[in-house]
Amino acid sequence: MATAELVAASGSGGADSSSTAAFMETYGKLKKELLEDHASEFTDESSLQWIDRMMDYNVLGGKCNRGLSVVDSYKILKGVDVLGHEDAFLACTLGWCIEWLQAYILVHDDIMDNSQTRRGKPCWFRVPQVGLIAVNDGIILRSHISRILQRHFKGKPYYIDLIDLFNEAEFKVSLGQLDLITTHDDEKDLRKYNVANHRCISQYKASYYSCYLPVACALLVAGENLDNFGDVKNILFEIGIYYQIQIGTDIQEYKCSWLVVQALEHADENQKRILFENYGKSDPVCVAKVKDLYKELNLEEVFREYESESYNRLIVDIKAQPNKAVQNVLKSFLHKIYKRDK
Amino acid sequence: MATAELVAASGSGGADSSSTAAFMETYGKLKKELLEDHASEFTDESSLQWIDRMMDYNVLGGKCNRGLSVVDSYKILKGVDVLGHEDAFLACTLGWCIEWLQAYILVHDDIMDNSQTRRGKPCWFRVPQVGLIAVNDGIILRSHISRILQRHFKGKPYYIDLIDLFNEAEFKVSLGQLDLITTHDDEKDLRKYNVANHRCISQYKASYYSCYLPVACALLVAGENLDNFGDVKNILFEIGIYYQIQIGTDIQEYKCSWLVVQALEHADENQKRILFENYGKSDPVCVAKVKDLYKELNLEEVFREYESESYNRLIVDIKAQPNKAVQNVLKSFLHKIYKRDK
Repeated sequence: MATAELVAASGSGGADSSSTAAFMETYGKLKKELLEDHASEFTDESSLQWIDRMMDYNVLGGKCNRGLSVVDSYKILKGVDVLGHEDAFLACTLGWCIEWLQAYILVHDDIMDNSQTRRGKPCWFRVPQVGLIAVNDGIILRSHISRILQRHFKGKPYYIDLIDLFNEAEFKVSLGQLDLITTHDDEKDLRKYNVANHRCISQYKASYYSCYLPVACALLVAGENLDNFGDVKNILFEIGIYYQIQIGTDIQEYKCSWLVVQALEHADENQKRILFENYGKSDPVCVAKVKDLYKELNLEEVFREYESESYNRLIVDIKAQPNKAVQNVLKSFLHKIYKRDK
Repeated sequence: MATAELVAASGSGGADSSSTAAFMETYGKLKKELLEDHASEFTDESSLQWIDRMMDYNVLGGKCNRGLSVVDSYKILKGVDVLGHEDAFLACTLGWCIEWLQAYILVHDDIMDNSQTRRGKPCWFRVPQVGLIAVNDGIILRSHISRILQRHFKGKPYYIDLIDLFNEAEFKVSLGQLDLITTHDDEKDLRKYNVANHRCISQYKASYYSCYLPVACALLVAGENLDNFGDVKNILFEIGIYYQIQIGTDIQEYKCSWLVVQALEHADENQKRILFENYGKSDPVCVAKVKDLYKELNLEEVFREYESESYNRLIVDIKAQPNKAVQNVLKSFLHKIYKRDK
């Protein structure tokens, strides 16, 4: 699963250094609470040390763009540059819940993909003494989200909505992983790949938790009912699909990537045959043949066209939003992902 | 992790064939709903078939004693032999949520323990084409619980309590797995094993979800506030610890089992040396030495004493419960686990 970091936030809506500092301070507080929570459950010092290290190793080290997006979005929704102490804490806490979710997903992903490195370090399961215990560590990280939500949001009118939202995010991600099923050596079948499937998988893999989840968290803290924001969800899904295309090539891994789906759309019978014969093989000769075909089909140009169309459509959709603050949230998100001159 | 089935229910409080039939019928309904749910998310037939097969393979095949305990306990709490249609459905549904939780735990457990078989079949991850995708399948099973609860219990006054309860169960199980950390080849340290640790680990591994969770579910459906039943929790934990002792030997696997903890309590310096040298090794000579030492220390007799004391204390504690129906639930549970002549 391609799970690179969101491009670094810059310009409008980007996190400034003071909100980054507040965000990091919140991590310290949440971690301390979780460790106290663990300490009240058992006496064994080595288990506590394990969890302490495991949290830092996996939750930290990313750019925190998803988490910071909650804070940014909430500020824009409230129309303020600086949040009050309590508001800032709640927004940062939900931001960290998304970072915890991301950590949990990546720990499991790396096991399933047999990956080597993550965020410039060995994947957690490759750390000496960890191995497949990492499966359980992922579950512990997942449980931390429930505990953070319970401690800081139980009693709020939107507590159930938050729980449902994170459960939904987790469910979607697990469905996105089902494309692993179609990548078995003996069952490779490119005929299953099409634009509709690709949209589904992208939505599950990244759009929901990377784009929709941060904004939905901000809307809930701002007291909004998510049922009224179906359009917002669709717009963020579109942004997420574009984001996923940017990072997904996966020629060797036989993934249902945007590129292969477009190649299948645009190829003639002879070119299709080349794809069927070479796609998903680790032999560099096969990889080169697929790349040559992509060039021949001018997929770079196809991508530019898609990007431009998609961007223009999104701008129209965003301007159609009745709520000006919500428009601004969406524009901020759009410009973090689409690095274009307006 | 030792996760054998609960001993088959028989005699008082045991599930009769009509409630087993109703229970199985509920599985069919829940599975159908989940598959429809999945089908509305994506169009790919092979993913649906995968999930269908994965559910049957992992959720079915056990004795369902945990799940049926919800139904039994609820009947006893209501003082009826037959539940109304709606009540029966709710109790069966929560019972299945526990079976789903169990399935999810076992799928992950078997990966981490590198196990061969489960319930008389190859472990799910050993089935051809599954492998480490099983990590994600576990997560899908876990998500099913949230979806079942959301569909059938959202709106009930105890919905949040149910979610918290299942989250807590999952958290405790993940903590129980932390004993894996102490079983690394190069970090074996029997000095960490003691009675207090063993009680903690047993509680996490099995007591909470195998014994407390079914009764707590029944109490919630019966409209009770779990905060008023702290004693019930403690009694069910004790029963669960006994249950865990019955099934846990783990001489080769270097687990913090009741037997090794007792051996360490009763051994002299020389006997301790033998333990330190031989425990946790797969060499049959070492295993035999540990077994001989257990015999020498008369651990069978130590167990009989523990069993008798624990049983008598539990009977006293149960009789101290103010609520007669709750007493009956606990007695029924006790006699399922302690196969003794009264």
